[in-house]
Amino acid sequence: MTTAERRERLTAVLAERGIDGVVVTTLVNVRYLTGFTGSNGALVVPREGAAVFLTDGRYRDQAAAELPDVEHQIGRDLLGAAAALAAGGTWAAETHTLSVDSHARLSELAPTTTFVPADRVVESLREVKDDAEIAALRRACDISTRALESLLQGPLAGRTERAVARDLENRMLDLGAEAVGFETILAAGENSAIPHHSPTDRILADGDLVKIDFGARVDGYHADCTRTFVLGRADDWQREIHAAVKESQAAGLVALREGAVIADSYAAATSSLDAVGWLSAFTTGLGHGVGLEIHEDPFIGPSQTGKLASRTVLTMEPGIYVPGRGGVRIEDTVLVTTGAPEVLTTMTKDLLEIG
Amino acid sequence: MTTAERRERLTAVLAERGIDGVVVTTLVNVRYLTGFTGSNGALVVPREGAAVFLTDGRYRDQAAAELPDVEHQIGRDLLGAAAALAAGGTWAAETHTLSVDSHARLSELAPTTTFVPADRVVESLREVKDDAEIAALRRACDISTRALESLLQGPLAGRTERAVARDLENRMLDLGAEAVGFETILAAGENSAIPHHSPTDRILADGDLVKIDFGARVDGYHADCTRTFVLGRADDWQREIHAAVKESQAAGLVALREGAVIADSYAAATSSLDAVGWLSAFTTGLGHGVGLEIHEDPFIGPSQTGKLASRTVLTMEPGIYVPGRGGVRIEDTVLVTTGAPEVLTTMTKDLLEIG
Repeated sequence: MTTAERRERLTAVLAERGIDGVVVTTLVNVRYLTGFTGSNGALVVPREGAAVFLTDGRYRDQAAAELPDVEHQIGRDLLGAAAALAAGGTWAAETHTLSVDSHARLSELAPTTTFVPADRVVESLREVKDDAEIAALRRACDISTRALESLLQGPLAGRTERAVARDLENRMLDLGAEAVGFETILAAGENSAIPHHSPTDRILADGDLVKIDFGARVDGYHADCTRTFVLGRADDWQREIHAAVKESQAAGLVALREGAVIADSYAAATSSLDAVGWLSAFTTGLGHGVGLEIHEDPFIGPSQTGKLASRTVLTMEPGIYVPGRGGVRIEDTVLVTTGAPEVLTTMTKDLLEIG
Repeated sequence: MTTAERRERLTAVLAERGIDGVVVTTLVNVRYLTGFTGSNGALVVPREGAAVFLTDGRYRDQAAAELPDVEHQIGRDLLGAAAALAAGGTWAAETHTLSVDSHARLSELAPTTTFVPADRVVESLREVKDDAEIAALRRACDISTRALESLLQGPLAGRTERAVARDLENRMLDLGAEAVGFETILAAGENSAIPHHSPTDRILADGDLVKIDFGARVDGYHADCTRTFVLGRADDWQREIHAAVKESQAAGLVALREGAVIADSYAAATSSLDAVGWLSAFTTGLGHGVGLEIHEDPFIGPSQTGKLASRTVLTMEPGIYVPGRGGVRIEDTVLVTTGAPEVLTTMTKDLLEIG
């Protein structure tokens, strides 16, 4: 789908809602609708007529190269330019991200315009991925999988969390990632009990659970994958919690298919943990959309009554965290289809015992 | 200065303003006031009594370790918890960053509270750095300088922008950076004319201007440095624009001292460019504060009538950009003192002819 087609889908929603346009100020939404990859930009999309892209002088050439098909205006005052373009009528503003002060200024500069909440309209469009997006996500997940598989060949014991995390990140870049998608979580031993742990100088040692949450970025699209393994021989308690998480993850995954209610996958994964007495040790979110953002709509939760559409990409990541001892998380990035979900992060989920 | 002392300075401002407290929702401000390094947190600071830190279950252990001296509450609904703590009276909210929707929810949940804008109160406190902050900034700048100096020893011609940028980033990490502070801008030849350029597969070749804008991060604090050099022998036009930028940067730097009006340094640097006919080719901002954020208060501009305080750290970064041909930027991170400013990024600013 071209960005022009994405903008057409957006204007169709505006027409349905009977509003005159939307001022898109959320940078990742601007990127989705235009292809612009810079750090400052906005897009004014009227229901009828051409969209106008706004950025500052630093991005003059980049905007010309990346957005040949969109009119653009260069200036320092993006809100002022947006207000002039959205003067009069009823327009949507992205009130879920736009600051109170910016919104007040926009309203002041466009006094005859009524601004209504955009209600995450662009985020909703972004939930269902087109072919190019799925290709980028597939590539990011493939690079991530291959990087981890190669890392696990090498010696790991005796190295620090920080050194091993950097090694993994370099492998992703060597394999063609444009960047590391997010700061790698690499947690050994008792640190694996901390859901979001920044790598330290702790040395990986025999008997440690090692949890790695990582992912590559390709063309702006993220992979998100977690695997947990053991250095040396696994203890019984490590096997027990790993098996419980693996089973929970499989139960949650099965429920990710077109037309399924999102909350059902939450119920499936958490019931599985509950059945073996570990639910209280699961203290994080269960899953989220993945795309241009590492965390995006839809989020998986017990009260999400929405239904999944085919071509939605999201994670499934139950975990068990035992403070002071260790933890296990298993996470895949998954493509929803009309049949079984396609797991894009294809690395084994068995409990590996590494050299 | 301890984080407790920072919070005391904040409550002193609240008392001056006659307001009952502030709900701090800007994550970097929360970090400044507490030391919390996670990705989700808020801080409720009453004018009298103890501050309360709010985060979610993922950060239970981290909060206990990082904030032993601050009461904290763990839960999913940070805004709800903040509203309960800020019930009644007049409180400041960070309306420059808080979204319209979050602000509406906060107001709805605390119906007897009047919320007023915080007016960047924490950002203002952050402008003047304490000893620990200056030490971290010094270290980040020192690592950055040494990384670039070592990079310039090696062969560069024949390698891609992307490969050389990654090499530089790895050198910063090898030297002890906790992370790369921001995506390295490494732009060769005609790409150097693009102020913010993402590294590509373009190969560095003899005769290229090479512009590198980069910096290390240490304990959350950023270095920000740009140098531009030539591969092989410099042409006259390259020498001309480099000399013009170097002179402009020196003129701007001199004006960065305690008590100076910020706009004066803007006038000094731009007058210098104007005198040699290159002002119209300067298309970016001239400088900004550096600290926990790579861009923070104060910003250097023609209408900034505020005065500089000693211990402010900021950049000075004039440039000349000639579309299709090339560009030069020279940028230092600088500590304002009562005397001459101290340049923390000590790498030479002469036009080097490399390899």
